[in-house]
Amino acid sequence: MSVLKNDLLLKALKGEAVSRPPVWMMRQAGRYLPDYIKLRQKYDFFTRVETPELACEITLQPVDQVGVDAAILFSDILVIPQAMGMEVLMEEGKGPLLPKVVATDADIDALITSDTEQRLDYVMKALTLTKQELNGRVPLIGFAGAPWTLLCYMVEGKGSKTFDKAKQFCFTQPELAHKLLQKITDVTIKYLKAQAAAGADLVQVFDSWSGMLSPADFKIFAQPYLVQIADAVSTEVPVILFPKGSWYALEDLSHTSAAGLGLDWSVRPELARQLTGGRVTLQGNFDPSKLLAPIPQIRKEVKEMIDGFGINRYVANLGHGILPNVPVDHARAFVDAVKEYGS
Amino acid sequence: MSVLKNDLLLKALKGEAVSRPPVWMMRQAGRYLPDYIKLRQKYDFFTRVETPELACEITLQPVDQVGVDAAILFSDILVIPQAMGMEVLMEEGKGPLLPKVVATDADIDALITSDTEQRLDYVMKALTLTKQELNGRVPLIGFAGAPWTLLCYMVEGKGSKTFDKAKQFCFTQPELAHKLLQKITDVTIKYLKAQAAAGADLVQVFDSWSGMLSPADFKIFAQPYLVQIADAVSTEVPVILFPKGSWYALEDLSHTSAAGLGLDWSVRPELARQLTGGRVTLQGNFDPSKLLAPIPQIRKEVKEMIDGFGINRYVANLGHGILPNVPVDHARAFVDAVKEYGS
Repeated sequence: MSVLKNDLLLKALKGEAVSRPPVWMMRQAGRYLPDYIKLRQKYDFFTRVETPELACEITLQPVDQVGVDAAILFSDILVIPQAMGMEVLMEEGKGPLLPKVVATDADIDALITSDTEQRLDYVMKALTLTKQELNGRVPLIGFAGAPWTLLCYMVEGKGSKTFDKAKQFCFTQPELAHKLLQKITDVTIKYLKAQAAAGADLVQVFDSWSGMLSPADFKIFAQPYLVQIADAVSTEVPVILFPKGSWYALEDLSHTSAAGLGLDWSVRPELARQLTGGRVTLQGNFDPSKLLAPIPQIRKEVKEMIDGFGINRYVANLGHGILPNVPVDHARAFVDAVKEYGS
Repeated sequence: MSVLKNDLLLKALKGEAVSRPPVWMMRQAGRYLPDYIKLRQKYDFFTRVETPELACEITLQPVDQVGVDAAILFSDILVIPQAMGMEVLMEEGKGPLLPKVVATDADIDALITSDTEQRLDYVMKALTLTKQELNGRVPLIGFAGAPWTLLCYMVEGKGSKTFDKAKQFCFTQPELAHKLLQKITDVTIKYLKAQAAAGADLVQVFDSWSGMLSPADFKIFAQPYLVQIADAVSTEVPVILFPKGSWYALEDLSHTSAAGLGLDWSVRPELARQLTGGRVTLQGNFDPSKLLAPIPQIRKEVKEMIDGFGINRYVANLGHGILPNVPVDHARAFVDAVKEYGS
């Protein structure tokens, strides 16, 4: 395996001094990139995800075209419910649909938990191929959805503004909820360890819907499972936790084995530092809509963001996924502004 | 005008001592109430909003049937864009649609700002009728959407997960954005003053989408207009501001002329108190999905919430609108648990 030529991200996660922060963007592979859109017209969603050559090609696009300091595998968080035996439909531009949701104890018992990482072998193949193609240019990030966020989809069956069906399930049948969350956690740990073995240099856990939970409920339904995953996987590779909307959990999570915490744009950098001390690397938190602003403004606000976080123990990123309607040169301006910081 | 028999809410907003907190629920009039659903089958949305007798009947339903300590007029925040000349369509269960959005300077110039309160005379008639029918039982709450939230709909044209079209408009054409926000603010101030004159004992300003903004952008596009409204209207009646998702603004807003601040459930009561000192009355913040939990759990968590906020300078409420699928007896359990607090 080739030595990494650009190891800024790994250094930042270890807390080592860097000359400038590393930069990547959530959802950087896909959506807004014309070359991705061409592939989307030829291959459907799961073909793109399940064909290692296509996933690899898509993963490399932003490294080549936008100049990010890390590649994140093109895949989806719902491959886990799929590997556990659930049907997942993905209609372009419409979001996911899981026609048969989890509702009963029997539904949870029916979920597959053995050999799921073998069932997801196409992910491992894509990681290994991408790692090879990267040839040490930048680190490769693997990822998974957090148990709470996956429960939301598995119980609700689709996206939702409130996920109240999923929450009702948790509030009325907490034993079933914990049984389901633990199953997802066990599968996710094996999955992320397999990703590390296949070539991921680090992994991120996306808790996209954790902000739907009150601070008290986050501690019940989200945090214990995030901590289990961080503890189990960080023996192999650094783990970044991204509990979107859960700024209230930053202090607690800064005391775990997670190397990094992702932030959305609702938290000022200074406050995030204050809540987490120097205990953890922070990642974020540019408002994705701000990439629609004029380029000079993007550059100015990127500088202010880095001023706020400081150079060390920091990974420049967006506060959520890049929007499909962002012009590529605006994405590039974001990346360039980080790279030029301080020079 | 009859003297209020139950003035708990007004006392709480003035910071006077109370024996227990007042309680009401955002969106308490409508949605989950069987008698409302019957009216919905007979009259379309704007007929219900624009017919004072119907609006009055719907407003009174939760006072009679759930026992809340305040009535809030059945209406909609989009009556303002409508009165300003925009077409607003409301498809049952689908959310609002504004076919011709605001995009240019000329579009803003074309918005009507004079006599809008006369164009909304049906709201004043509904308030006066409801005030009369209430006969002093409980205070009557008027309301309006906050300028930022109305801009979101007027520019985006419909609901959105990110409101990135509205944000792009603000980030790329800030002068136009401020011109629009000021126009909405001017109209809203006149509207809320007219509501006070027509019988509203207090008003609430709903900034439902303020949490989409970073703390820095909130200070630019939301806060100045909220403050203008609070300053202008609080000379007539107490003003509650509800900037959903913008916990980061609590401290700043506690230094304004607003009598109350609404909170969603992402903030712990103790932290909200800490951020706002004793300067303002706090309102909220029960997770609306928690009303789907078993009744004993609702009662237990209501008690914990009041323990956290304390009895004085506090208004028990949800952290957002009540969900359509909440059983009426669960809503009643929420209200009863507040009423029985400490006894």
